[in-house]
Amino acid sequence: MQEITQLHAIFDRTRGYINNFMGVIQPIIDAATDEHTRLYYHHILEEEEQRMGRLQELVPYLEKLSAGKSLDQLSDRDLSQMLSDVNLERFGLHNFREHLELSLYEFKDDETRQLLDGMREKTHTDYLTVKEIMANMSQRFSDAAHPDLTDHDEGHDIHQVDHLKASASAPHGVASVIKHSAPAVTGKKGLTVGSLKGM
Amino acid sequence: MQEITQLHAIFDRTRGYINNFMGVIQPIIDAATDEHTRLYYHHILEEEEQRMGRLQELVPYLEKLSAGKSLDQLSDRDLSQMLSDVNLERFGLHNFREHLELSLYEFKDDETRQLLDGMREKTHTDYLTVKEIMANMSQRFSDAAHPDLTDHDEGHDIHQVDHLKASASAPHGVASVIKHSAPAVTGKKGLTVGSLKGM
Repeated sequence: MQEITQLHAIFDRTRGYINNFMGVIQPIIDAATDEHTRLYYHHILEEEEQRMGRLQELVPYLEKLSAGKSLDQLSDRDLSQMLSDVNLERFGLHNFREHLELSLYEFKDDETRQLLDGMREKTHTDYLTVKEIMANMSQRFSDAAHPDLTDHDEGHDIHQVDHLKASASAPHGVASVIKHSAPAVTGKKGLTVGSLKGM
Repeated sequence: MQEITQLHAIFDRTRGYINNFMGVIQPIIDAATDEHTRLYYHHILEEEEQRMGRLQELVPYLEKLSAGKSLDQLSDRDLSQMLSDVNLERFGLHNFREHLELSLYEFKDDETRQLLDGMREKTHTDYLTVKEIMANMSQRFSDAAHPDLTDHDEGHDIHQVDHLKASASAPHGVASVIKHSAPAVTGKKGLTVGSLKGM
């Protein structure tokens, strides 16, 4: 059950990260001056909201599972369903990593950039761990139908790029405006990067 | 079974649209000159690839279902699983609409813009139809566990924006380069906007 406990910890952590990320991005939407910027970040946050909705069911389920009976006692169908749900969230972690990387190109201030990059790094490690656990479990429970483990993330050079570095010299967006001339926007939400770090 | 036949037609159509969309976007990735642009469109295509992977299972399942027994004969569990899968693809349609809208900001030429906007319009109609079918079925099969139908797409002004209009005057991206000075890129894929329209 070690694996289920690990999965539970990973998906519980990413729920916290989604909240942090929303706190960082919402002010950009509020301060955006053109429809493209608004749509872009609105879209990213909406996808993270959908992921949060799924995690709010998966995390308690994994918690119950990790405290209870052995996986061998699950029916093939329950096992297969669980593997399929975890597989979907494996993609969710991968996509979240890219949302974090894309956001690095928005911010100029080191504090926010370090916060985003820290979540990016941990999310990538978590993604790799989930991938490994999935491969192990699929092999072990080869009788149960299990999801297609095809990886859509390989063979793309873009995944090898250090986006923290690449974004350092890129032109930045509306975020600098928020940071320096509209403190009321972050104040309104009662959130600062410092407070988010402690979440 | 009218509803299942409708769902099948909608998700079959969106598979075709994903292929069209990929043909339009891949040249942008190939021609991108900065990491942010590459990451941005790579990310969008990757999400659509993941959606395609799920649809390759869902569409044949719906086809089989529409040709077979009545929904009332499905077990609660099968019904609940089907509702949950369709609900995930309801979000998929919504997200695809936004991918199409975001892409409108990249292209200057009318032909591509009309192609994207046409798919956007039909995708939005399909999304609303799925939403209605889901609501009806959830009510009718109230005994089976069914997914949370909470809508993350309401109360956002951004969904009321006409992005075809808003993007008309926006500064455009790398796409104009492809269109006018690098025909070899589209030639390589053997795809043109004209050929995509007939797909």
